[in-house]
Amino acid sequence: MQNRKLVVIGGDAAGMSAASKVRREHPDRSIVVFERGRFTSYAACGMPYLVAGMVEAPEKLIARSPETFREKQRIDVRTRHEVVEIDPARKRVRVQNLDASLEFWEDWDDLLIATGASPIQPDVPNASADGIFSLSTLQSGLDVFEDMQRRPPRSAVVVGGGYVGIEMAEALRERDVPVSLVDMAPQVMNTLDPDMAEDIATFMQDAGVRLFLGERLQRFDVDASGRVSSVVTDQRALEADLVILGLGIRPNSALARAAGIQLGPSGALRVDRGMRTSVADIWAAGDCAESFHRVKEEPTFIALGTVANKHGLVAGTNLSGGALEFPGVLGTAITRFQDLEIARTGLSEKEAKALGIAYRSRTIEALTRSHYFPGAAKLKVKLLVEAATGRLLGGQIVGRGGAGKRIDTLATAITARMTAEQLVYLDLAYAPPFSPVWDPVQTAARTLSG
Amino acid sequence: MQNRKLVVIGGDAAGMSAASKVRREHPDRSIVVFERGRFTSYAACGMPYLVAGMVEAPEKLIARSPETFREKQRIDVRTRHEVVEIDPARKRVRVQNLDASLEFWEDWDDLLIATGASPIQPDVPNASADGIFSLSTLQSGLDVFEDMQRRPPRSAVVVGGGYVGIEMAEALRERDVPVSLVDMAPQVMNTLDPDMAEDIATFMQDAGVRLFLGERLQRFDVDASGRVSSVVTDQRALEADLVILGLGIRPNSALARAAGIQLGPSGALRVDRGMRTSVADIWAAGDCAESFHRVKEEPTFIALGTVANKHGLVAGTNLSGGALEFPGVLGTAITRFQDLEIARTGLSEKEAKALGIAYRSRTIEALTRSHYFPGAAKLKVKLLVEAATGRLLGGQIVGRGGAGKRIDTLATAITARMTAEQLVYLDLAYAPPFSPVWDPVQTAARTLSG
Repeated sequence: MQNRKLVVIGGDAAGMSAASKVRREHPDRSIVVFERGRFTSYAACGMPYLVAGMVEAPEKLIARSPETFREKQRIDVRTRHEVVEIDPARKRVRVQNLDASLEFWEDWDDLLIATGASPIQPDVPNASADGIFSLSTLQSGLDVFEDMQRRPPRSAVVVGGGYVGIEMAEALRERDVPVSLVDMAPQVMNTLDPDMAEDIATFMQDAGVRLFLGERLQRFDVDASGRVSSVVTDQRALEADLVILGLGIRPNSALARAAGIQLGPSGALRVDRGMRTSVADIWAAGDCAESFHRVKEEPTFIALGTVANKHGLVAGTNLSGGALEFPGVLGTAITRFQDLEIARTGLSEKEAKALGIAYRSRTIEALTRSHYFPGAAKLKVKLLVEAATGRLLGGQIVGRGGAGKRIDTLATAITARMTAEQLVYLDLAYAPPFSPVWDPVQTAARTLSG
Repeated sequence: MQNRKLVVIGGDAAGMSAASKVRREHPDRSIVVFERGRFTSYAACGMPYLVAGMVEAPEKLIARSPETFREKQRIDVRTRHEVVEIDPARKRVRVQNLDASLEFWEDWDDLLIATGASPIQPDVPNASADGIFSLSTLQSGLDVFEDMQRRPPRSAVVVGGGYVGIEMAEALRERDVPVSLVDMAPQVMNTLDPDMAEDIATFMQDAGVRLFLGERLQRFDVDASGRVSSVVTDQRALEADLVILGLGIRPNSALARAAGIQLGPSGALRVDRGMRTSVADIWAAGDCAESFHRVKEEPTFIALGTVANKHGLVAGTNLSGGALEFPGVLGTAITRFQDLEIARTGLSEKEAKALGIAYRSRTIEALTRSHYFPGAAKLKVKLLVEAATGRLLGGQIVGRGGAGKRIDTLATAITARMTAEQLVYLDLAYAPPFSPVWDPVQTAARTLSG
């Protein structure tokens, strides 16, 4: 195993986690990473906060540079190198050096596909006009950042009210840019249920974001210079000299598909719990690969940094001769709009319905601290339990002042297959500056137990 | 059951939770509560913050008044009534009306003992001099508050470096009173291990608290008026015109013992999982009763509001004909000194050693947010796992900026008997304002897994 050459496609979280793990286990193994961009291991999630001006400088978002990987870990990272073909039969990949217009074949004994995911582009006129940006790679974040420096926007439209949309709306408000947000769904944050999303919408509107929900994007208009001038929906035209697209992402799996590697229905690579694809000696990890969903009990496509890091660690362990299984995900996620914290885990009502699971659900309002303690802030907690058993299926939290990370307690309880009643009797921490005597997640659970 | 008369001794968290639960289940049942103080259902944990001036007024600490219980819930609450004898054979209690010097017998079908706990008093000269206070009942908090209003202290000494001691040291610093803290242990916060306690001590010293650890209290000196003037240890005399005692508490169980009800080694009432004592139709709940410890797997004495509320709910359910078992405690607790958050759950090293459990432990330093995000604060996480199995035994957290409530994730994972490796692969929430991509509890777990 020590002699097996490892090639990794993609130098971000999953790929570099795996490569680093293999290096730790096998100090002398040959490890080559091809990354088509200029950066490795960067914090894509930090980009909205870079745009907002909260992060001092773009370099702060780079966890580890290609040079560091090369020098400190002797991992042969080659940036600006794009893999354009996988040849499983001859165990080699075809690589383009993007800076030198060179192409070559590289052999491998083991191949890890960590090609990530890309933003979905809308299929409407002028979608690639100047001033329209998606956020995915660090470079795409830099592009927005530099465009705004060069040409401070007069008014911006965010298309899509998911995580990226909400975080970018905050970032633009932080820079005092007038912001409108358009989504074809009737709510923001589609991964939460409508009752919870309504609180978010109200908060955003109070903060000056104009919301246009249930409206379908039809085209972009451009000015004489070719720059976007307005966003046209089926109901109105919104002036904008800056547009941020947050329409979701899809896995970068074309390369794998072309090589005959099995994909799941989402288009992401089908992997076993050890991160092996359908083809021997080819592995996958990160945003391009599926994960097992612990509640749905089926493969799912969830592209998040946390998951990518875990995928990478599992793949790296197994590539080094270990025997680790990735136990799966719950779709846990957290974000914020200004000081409103938004978190979810497990199944939403929508998801439970789609799966045909009979559930009960309750939403409660509580405080983050004892009612008499300064800074006690309102939060809402929604819980879903399986109707027949009382087993926790999912949770959603919206509120201020430390509301959001309480989702971790729910994620842990769901993983342990606890019932609402078991959650009520957990020995959670209480003191007046931190919680009411019954933590809000327990108050919610009390309405669903017994 | 509807006709059985319930008498409750003690009108705070456990007693009133149980009485309220019985009332909800049985609208017409006769329920009498005897409370020797003037208040019911108050937030004792809020008293340090009342003294600090952070809570506006003492009334804010009262969750529900005796009048409200009488009028809204038709619970016959009699304050200033002390039960002085339990007669199990004839199913009656002897009661003193403290305001009228009257004594009478009251019959019951079911009796709930919820007599709470009392501060330990030091057996040294002048321990009851003016200016020396313990904190337990709301009245005791008011006494300190009023004394400080009447006579602003020039310098205070806190004896005992546990929860009460640390919170009162904060409160006194908040009021700009010079504070010294004395403890006979070589560390503050004895429920945490010395390495974690050291960070707390350093922080407190930086905030101007003079610490005298490993010093034994010998006596108090008093001035001509009989008020305390100094605290004398085996190593020095410390000037003080205000002294706060935080020497721990012991269960109020003399009444039960005198009635032949079984106590545990701690002196608290021995109860089964349904909160029944050794005598038929006599129940116990709250600070006077033991709890089953989920990791130690034996009865333990832990007096906390969270536990008392749960005891009360279980007792009330079973007193109403339900069949609920209290699953037990982990010794989870949280406090703070100014913005330093301090939390623990499960076993400390000391406890694991005392139980003869072979364990491994690691302490890591991490950040509460992504390193590039404003406000990222340092925290330390210590974890203990069982050496043979990797199962989580306990955790301790010290740090700022939202560090503390992460203990709930550990408490939930310990309850579910997870291993460190299972904790590593939990799907916890990440976004730059809330956490690094690996939550600090997972970073700690990674050092103990695989």
